[in-house]
Amino acid sequence: MAEVERLSLRHPGGTTRIFIGREVFEPARQVVGPWLEGRSTFVVTTPRVRELHGGSLERLLASASRVHVLEVAEGEAAKRLEVAGELWEKMLAAGGKRDSRLIAMGGGSVGDIGGFVAGCFLRGIEYVQIPTTLLAQVDAAIGGKTAVDLGATKNSVGVFHHPAAVLSEIDFLATLPDGEVRAALAEVIKMALLLDPLLLERVERELPALLDGAPEALAPMVVAAAKAKARLVERDPAESDERRMLNFGHTLGHAIEAELGYEQLRHGEAVAYGMLFALRLARRRGFERSLADRFRKLVERLAPPPLPPLSVPGLLAAMARDKKGGEGGLAWVLPEKLGEGQIARDVGAEELADELAAFLADPWTVV
Amino acid sequence: MAEVERLSLRHPGGTTRIFIGREVFEPARQVVGPWLEGRSTFVVTTPRVRELHGGSLERLLASASRVHVLEVAEGEAAKRLEVAGELWEKMLAAGGKRDSRLIAMGGGSVGDIGGFVAGCFLRGIEYVQIPTTLLAQVDAAIGGKTAVDLGATKNSVGVFHHPAAVLSEIDFLATLPDGEVRAALAEVIKMALLLDPLLLERVERELPALLDGAPEALAPMVVAAAKAKARLVERDPAESDERRMLNFGHTLGHAIEAELGYEQLRHGEAVAYGMLFALRLARRRGFERSLADRFRKLVERLAPPPLPPLSVPGLLAAMARDKKGGEGGLAWVLPEKLGEGQIARDVGAEELADELAAFLADPWTVV
Repeated sequence: MAEVERLSLRHPGGTTRIFIGREVFEPARQVVGPWLEGRSTFVVTTPRVRELHGGSLERLLASASRVHVLEVAEGEAAKRLEVAGELWEKMLAAGGKRDSRLIAMGGGSVGDIGGFVAGCFLRGIEYVQIPTTLLAQVDAAIGGKTAVDLGATKNSVGVFHHPAAVLSEIDFLATLPDGEVRAALAEVIKMALLLDPLLLERVERELPALLDGAPEALAPMVVAAAKAKARLVERDPAESDERRMLNFGHTLGHAIEAELGYEQLRHGEAVAYGMLFALRLARRRGFERSLADRFRKLVERLAPPPLPPLSVPGLLAAMARDKKGGEGGLAWVLPEKLGEGQIARDVGAEELADELAAFLADPWTVV
Repeated sequence: MAEVERLSLRHPGGTTRIFIGREVFEPARQVVGPWLEGRSTFVVTTPRVRELHGGSLERLLASASRVHVLEVAEGEAAKRLEVAGELWEKMLAAGGKRDSRLIAMGGGSVGDIGGFVAGCFLRGIEYVQIPTTLLAQVDAAIGGKTAVDLGATKNSVGVFHHPAAVLSEIDFLATLPDGEVRAALAEVIKMALLLDPLLLERVERELPALLDGAPEALAPMVVAAAKAKARLVERDPAESDERRMLNFGHTLGHAIEAELGYEQLRHGEAVAYGMLFALRLARRRGFERSLADRFRKLVERLAPPPLPPLSVPGLLAAMARDKKGGEGGLAWVLPEKLGEGQIARDVGAEELADELAAFLADPWTVV
């Protein structure tokens, strides 16, 4: 049997057990099997994920008293309040109770809607995340953030609801399109720059194998990234300042996505450009040139698609609408040195407009 | 200035400050004023409550940067997922952020929808409860339970989200219809029997003044009931067994309400009958005859309307649908001795059907 890494994330409501590796279902069954024993169990997934990976669930679900599969659409289309309402109706009709269980199996969107549905059904039932994408395994499935999108605003309605367990099967990543891995690596190097210098070295060293989807390279990287994320969440469960470090690259990244109508660029690709822009601001605040250049080179090797045409006023307006803002204005996560970041709230309107214009003219110059 | 009682409720996410008395707004302003300082503030209320009591808010809200009033319908009509969706849309359109504030001012329904909207907006913003009914002041506003109704099931979707503060203005109770006070007293004597013998004595002694709505009688009773509830919530924040004590009378009470289509009887009146039925089951398990009789007499003095015609099969089916059930069947909260209760899961189908038939034939005989 392949090696499976086990991590724990302690949060105010209990502990999340995290299993990462190849063939995780057998060892995870020792924990998840008894948790499902005699319970009605709801599986939230997409038709595509069910076809690809549904077979892996069969032995895991054997101890449940009843299993109800709730299919949702791929991607952000699943993250709607009406979809949550439909799932709740189905769960009530199927006799769901406070001690029923839910399993969310899929990418970040499935985890977000599944976690939200579990978090609010009868004021919260326990659930397990089975992330099937690299992005969800290294980031979204860990930390209890759940949400749906309302109107044009992403993740505008949600709750913090930690899963009882996260099962990250590395072999699932073999079915991902190439661009998905590239986009997810942007989030990994984000965490690496701010939290874990060794992880940054690992990605620099093994990038070709990672982009190839080699499981021997992916498994230890997922473990390191999940560990960095879990430790951060433990230190800051309610997402006050420290956990907001993970928003590095997201202040502009979200605005780019919104301005592009969530098309043309993947989330991770928009974040890659957002990080390049944040590096500019960080450089002006004394972030070391050689580190900025090293980081830029790594982003360059990810080779995101070219930045589509965007305007300074459009991006500024999108940022002003962003929920991450407060009454006090925009917060920027900027690297301070390797493995450490800070929240800067002192970026003035003029500086921002000037730097944005320069960035749009030449995104790749950060120093 | 009138005397105002201050209580604290410590929960996993912080502390709820509770103010109870006549003219609470002045002392509460010392806490709530700084909390609102410079924030966008959303006030969830009904047109009727706004007309009756909106003026009391003016000085309290003076420190907020902006105030947006969000009106909802009276009663359960406000507790719908679509209503929550509309409020979230309005809050986003008004520029609501993670550090915005929400105030829910009204009865239990306003507190439920307002708390739910606060609990999920951008994964949770802080809020304050200003309960304007006796039922909300003694029970619903304290403990962080929020919810909307989905389909025919009450409180089927919600979260635990504790308010930063609860402001219970006793003088607001003067505007309540007579029946509301009677129904709320049923919930008070429920808490008294299971948690606080002194509160039971107080209600027995002062019932005429309480039913008259005398503020001198109401204020100390609201304080005692709120204290009993707060201590229970502190001991059991996530509502495992201990907090379920508060479901005394609710297993059958909810079924009666559901079978009557939430008409004819108020919630507290249905609970009064539910308690009488639970007393029957408790008597069969050895609960003292004289105590059961004493409690029955107190319920009798509340003089709920006669129990409308109901059927044993209808009530059994309604109970089977109830979310409070688990995979293991119905849980009954039964008094064991004065000030203490237990959860009984050993009430068999035959016993239940027999006792229900006897109860429907003669609800008032419990011994």
